[in-house]
Amino acid sequence: MRIVGIAGSLRKASFNSSLLRAAVEECPAGVELEIESIRGIPLYDGDVEAGQGLPPRVVELKEKVAAADALLLVTPEYNNSIPGPFKNAIDWMSRPASDIDRVFGGRPVGMIGASPGRQGTLLSQTAWL
Amino acid sequence: MRIVGIAGSLRKASFNSSLLRAAVEECPAGVELEIESIRGIPLYDGDVEAGQGLPPRVVELKEKVAAADALLLVTPEYNNSIPGPFKNAIDWMSRPASDIDRVFGGRPVGMIGASPGRQGTLLSQTAWL
Repeated sequence: MRIVGIAGSLRKASFNSSLLRAAVEECPAGVELEIESIRGIPLYDGDVEAGQGLPPRVVELKEKVAAADALLLVTPEYNNSIPGPFKNAIDWMSRPASDIDRVFGGRPVGMIGASPGRQGTLLSQTAWL
Repeated sequence: MRIVGIAGSLRKASFNSSLLRAAVEECPAGVELEIESIRGIPLYDGDVEAGQGLPPRVVELKEKVAAADALLLVTPEYNNSIPGPFKNAIDWMSRPASDIDRVFGGRPVGMIGASPGRQGTLLSQTAWL
């Protein structure tokens, strides 16, 4: 089983990037968890999509997910909800709409998060769901 | 009464930017609605905040809201929820946390949205609420 894990923070010492690295170490035999990030994905702009198509980094992430057995979102929590930069990455990855089924359709999606607070990223995960 | 309206799309021909301009025309006497956007706000990165502070454009938007009587969010809907780039702008504007009360505290926030679909931006507005 191959899983692509995307950490949704740009901070170098991100707790969620650390959590993803720790999850790799905990993988049982036969499971490969690839570490990915939202780095290099610009802000979604419909004019950019219409004029230049998807940024190469978005295409790369989409194809990695499409080729994997499952997707793991490793999410911070901003303002009790989804982090803007992480949602932005998923928004790009859902374009064009005709490609959504190929990338996300029928593919299990897991969710974990790390936070210095006592509730982890509970409200963010709820918003994602 | 002075209201700051922020349109949450980067697309030049954005339906929501058009809606905001239309709202300005509908303002009754005594109400001023200022047109604002999320242009110029980079992706939130905690390392940038720690190293360089808030981007000037974020400071500018924060101060406009802090000086206004109310805030109007003019929101698109991406993937049945909040648009990543718009949430990103609010995430930046909520930094540092010690400033949240001065910018957002006790200030009425309205929400409108436009969409080619039949439900407008219902699910996005629900997610924002």
